[in-house]
Amino acid sequence: MISVCIKRNSASYEIVKKRGEFILHLLGDNQKELASTFFKPTIFENEKLNGQEFSLENNLPLLKDVPAYIQCKVVEILENGDHPLFLAEVVDAKINNDSNPLELRKTGWTYGG
Amino acid sequence: MISVCIKRNSASYEIVKKRGEFILHLLGDNQKELASTFFKPTIFENEKLNGQEFSLENNLPLLKDVPAYIQCKVVEILENGDHPLFLAEVVDAKINNDSNPLELRKTGWTYGG
Repeated sequence: MISVCIKRNSASYEIVKKRGEFILHLLGDNQKELASTFFKPTIFENEKLNGQEFSLENNLPLLKDVPAYIQCKVVEILENGDHPLFLAEVVDAKINNDSNPLELRKTGWTYGG
Repeated sequence: MISVCIKRNSASYEIVKKRGEFILHLLGDNQKELASTFFKPTIFENEKLNGQEFSLENNLPLLKDVPAYIQCKVVEILENGDHPLFLAEVVDAKINNDSNPLELRKTGWTYGG
């Protein structure tokens, strides 16, 4: 079981709430640039998401070149606060390569979306 | 707003659930030994908690020498899973000194309680 908080009324919030499942990407410490491409609204163009290659994994978008990911099924949503909390069961998880995680405090950013 | 997960039926779980508030200690990367003293049941002896000095802050136990702490008020409890999730409002927070955080993945442990 894991939890993630998503900004209320954002596109991600609406999609995850409606769909009830999502893939959580775990980025490596060399993928700050990739992360920053999702600071703007996500656009599907030239078969890419904000310029990033992806595939469909169980009909969910999975970015290429992520060191690891977790596929999740939403169990409950706590609507408190400005970033409601999604409690989710882990359905599947995969490690593609060993990598140090991208940590918010090391990016110089104070907010990760 | 923050969330913490506490093992069901543990002493901490029962106390936090009953009391509805708690202090979350943020440990420095040199305090692995302090953390490990709380792997066993907490005992109050010689005016210490498991051998650690503490004071009462708003009537809640606050360990001495922690680099930072957050005082929280429980808003909601999700009983799903083996470690129920406590959603809590931040009532107060204090930084005593700048320090790198004690990270589970760097301790060699796979579980932090």
